[in-house]
Amino acid sequence: ARAAMSARWWRQPLDHLRCNAAQPTWEQRYLLDDTYWGKKRAMHNGCRGPILFYSGNEGPIEAFYESNGFMRSVLAPSLGGLLVFGEARYYGQSQPQNNSGKFDFLSTEQILADYASLLTGLKLQLNATNCPVVSFGGSYGGTLTTLLRLKYPHVVTGGLASSAPLGYYSPSGWRARGVTPYSWFETVIDVYSQAGCYASLVHAVSAVRRLSGSGPGRAALSARFGLCDAFGDANAFVYWITEALESIPQVNYPDASGGLPAHPVRAVCSLFTHADGRTGADGVSALANVTRWYYGVGSRGCVESARNTQLDGGVPGDGPQNGTAWGYQSCTETLHRFSVPPGAWRSYEWDERRLSDACFAAFGVRPRLDWIEGWSGGYAIADLRTTTNLIWSNGKLDPWHRGGFLRQTDALPGGRVFVFDYTAHHQDLRAPSADDPSELVVARAVEEELIRRWIQEAASATASSF
Amino acid sequence: ARAAMSARWWRQPLDHLRCNAAQPTWEQRYLLDDTYWGKKRAMHNGCRGPILFYSGNEGPIEAFYESNGFMRSVLAPSLGGLLVFGEARYYGQSQPQNNSGKFDFLSTEQILADYASLLTGLKLQLNATNCPVVSFGGSYGGTLTTLLRLKYPHVVTGGLASSAPLGYYSPSGWRARGVTPYSWFETVIDVYSQAGCYASLVHAVSAVRRLSGSGPGRAALSARFGLCDAFGDANAFVYWITEALESIPQVNYPDASGGLPAHPVRAVCSLFTHADGRTGADGVSALANVTRWYYGVGSRGCVESARNTQLDGGVPGDGPQNGTAWGYQSCTETLHRFSVPPGAWRSYEWDERRLSDACFAAFGVRPRLDWIEGWSGGYAIADLRTTTNLIWSNGKLDPWHRGGFLRQTDALPGGRVFVFDYTAHHQDLRAPSADDPSELVVARAVEEELIRRWIQEAASATASSF
Repeated sequence: ARAAMSARWWRQPLDHLRCNAAQPTWEQRYLLDDTYWGKKRAMHNGCRGPILFYSGNEGPIEAFYESNGFMRSVLAPSLGGLLVFGEARYYGQSQPQNNSGKFDFLSTEQILADYASLLTGLKLQLNATNCPVVSFGGSYGGTLTTLLRLKYPHVVTGGLASSAPLGYYSPSGWRARGVTPYSWFETVIDVYSQAGCYASLVHAVSAVRRLSGSGPGRAALSARFGLCDAFGDANAFVYWITEALESIPQVNYPDASGGLPAHPVRAVCSLFTHADGRTGADGVSALANVTRWYYGVGSRGCVESARNTQLDGGVPGDGPQNGTAWGYQSCTETLHRFSVPPGAWRSYEWDERRLSDACFAAFGVRPRLDWIEGWSGGYAIADLRTTTNLIWSNGKLDPWHRGGFLRQTDALPGGRVFVFDYTAHHQDLRAPSADDPSELVVARAVEEELIRRWIQEAASATASSF
Repeated sequence: ARAAMSARWWRQPLDHLRCNAAQPTWEQRYLLDDTYWGKKRAMHNGCRGPILFYSGNEGPIEAFYESNGFMRSVLAPSLGGLLVFGEARYYGQSQPQNNSGKFDFLSTEQILADYASLLTGLKLQLNATNCPVVSFGGSYGGTLTTLLRLKYPHVVTGGLASSAPLGYYSPSGWRARGVTPYSWFETVIDVYSQAGCYASLVHAVSAVRRLSGSGPGRAALSARFGLCDAFGDANAFVYWITEALESIPQVNYPDASGGLPAHPVRAVCSLFTHADGRTGADGVSALANVTRWYYGVGSRGCVESARNTQLDGGVPGDGPQNGTAWGYQSCTETLHRFSVPPGAWRSYEWDERRLSDACFAAFGVRPRLDWIEGWSGGYAIADLRTTTNLIWSNGKLDPWHRGGFLRQTDALPGGRVFVFDYTAHHQDLRAPSADDPSELVVARAVEEELIRRWIQEAASATASSF
């Protein structure tokens, strides 16, 4: 089946919103997989089969293709769908400014305009103008899918937005929804607490911090964590450890992924089962083990870098970062107003001015904190029902879920809200696993039925206009 | 009542879509009239009264304020509404680039982003965040209202888009809707034919053209039309006359407006009642009379300029023009694919290449003929029902109506389609006149009720989220 997947290129203008005739163009990469296209009965309006589009987020598109088993191995065969995975501009091989380190034309609006143009043009090219498109996305990709449906409703007829943290960018609604700067981190704490090792982790990190304060301690840490080079900045080293801890809950999947074992939170905690919480002696080794899982070891067989690349010390989740596209977007649109609650393994107090200055120094831009809300509505998408046919799914083990649409009353006409008790970040987009919680098994079936209905309705609408 | 209207200014970024921290700003003008605001019972959710917004189109905003009697003297008093009239960037006194003749940031998207920002900010400033906004617009302003509702549904809860010729920018749907390059001009012909003077007009223009071919003829024309200066280019002179003829049907209102008498088409034809259609002798005088109505006479008491400022000889309706904002937009987004049918008083064959070259020479831009359709959906707005709560109204005496949503099945959920037999360009937005056709009287009442319902629904949606 994989043989039918190919990487292709689509010419895009640098700026969709300017009319300059002499505007430079660049080549956007997308993946096309027609293995199953047209293998089911043709639709009412003559379309061979629907288009299942992934609105690529911050990373090379192959990674999203790989991890989206729900689209590849469930929906495409079942619906006879054409798979199209669009790569977001400035990520992977889609480089409007040739990896120059400039991000002048990087914004959610430009990314959406790329996708709208790609889909419109591709449908013409493939004689598929009558084929409905359903969009999919996880995390920021889910934000993109939501906004693609909202802003280009004639291009996509519906969307599955999994773990889209749009609400985190909708500050005016935080109070009504009980969101605070601690919400993200609180899920991290809850997840480890329920797995039984949160206190041990706090103690272990504290032990690392103590050790990093003395020469012999640093030597011990260097050996224990297997650093290639001499121990560097202590704060950065501790951050490097806590970043792994804070990232694992969202990828707490039932199957091994990356270097992580299956159920990695449980695995992390099991490392501490025999650890001495008080002195943290074995806890330090356990943390070293966690970092090896999470970061892997370099080709030299040792840890090449234990740095903190986050500006301003590290917004929980993620934040501004020098030189990267996502670091830039974190400065302009997706800056997370998150702090670390007291008593956790590190301190971080969000401060707009400090971050704004860091962003200005790094990219010459300052955050526009209400931009996404102002442009799209944020929570108002649900409150005012400004669109239809969107599935919003979230899992309570995922720190991002508190920024989602979680109320059953948020469900849009034709859409649905899923809040899972036992899933992590955009887990419904992954291939079904024997170890999936039953709530997820049921939900994927409902999602498929909703998607099937949107496609049929769109085909009928087009059919009747002939 | 007028005393409560004031012109105000709102700071806007030059480019809503770029994140540059050092981006220049400019001052957008808007008119605010709170004469009636809060004079009715407060709404369910505590809002004092709705906001009635006019999405200004190509011209100084006062003109739209003046001509929109329906908003000013009917809806605002009846609904206790706040009137806000936004001036489009690059028109009137809203000059992002200081009247430099540059239009780098002029586009429909930027105009809509201005309005969305203005409304969002103004609501905060006026403690009116809970107040629903309904948008209004005529002609391109109706296109803007449609797209504002479509693209910013959280900002405006509904819209009355009168004579919005969106379909003219949606070429893929022309065939299905019976639109051709002649559609616009055919209404001009129909209107004069029904009023009984189309053939006389053709003869009269033909007589002018003959006269302009000889020295004595030009002298006679110069005297008859009251030109201040020597007779110039003959083609431009004829175009100047026909432009008046072609423009009058769309302003064929029951009341006098500008220099035109009431029912100007009828008035034009009455000039020909005793004219000799064959020789066109009196027809020439009649045309001179028409130009005096339409263009007025300058302060010197004579006609200062009988020129053709349209590039490429003059697309019917309007088209690219040197140096003006609308001339620029006609090059980038709103280029009308119109030709003059055979046998009319002038010839014009639309040619993309020729117009594109003219635009490139004038502004360094080339038309993007499918841009508005690609970006918004065009006819797909109705076919796929991509939004709700829009009233689309058109009058059959208006050459622009064929580019509208005219089918009853186009009506969106919460919306309505009106097609009037006896009205001209966005006539429902004008103040009621004793001479209005009854279809219009009825429609204004229905429009008011629909608008009232949208406002109530929006207020309920906001109320329930507290």
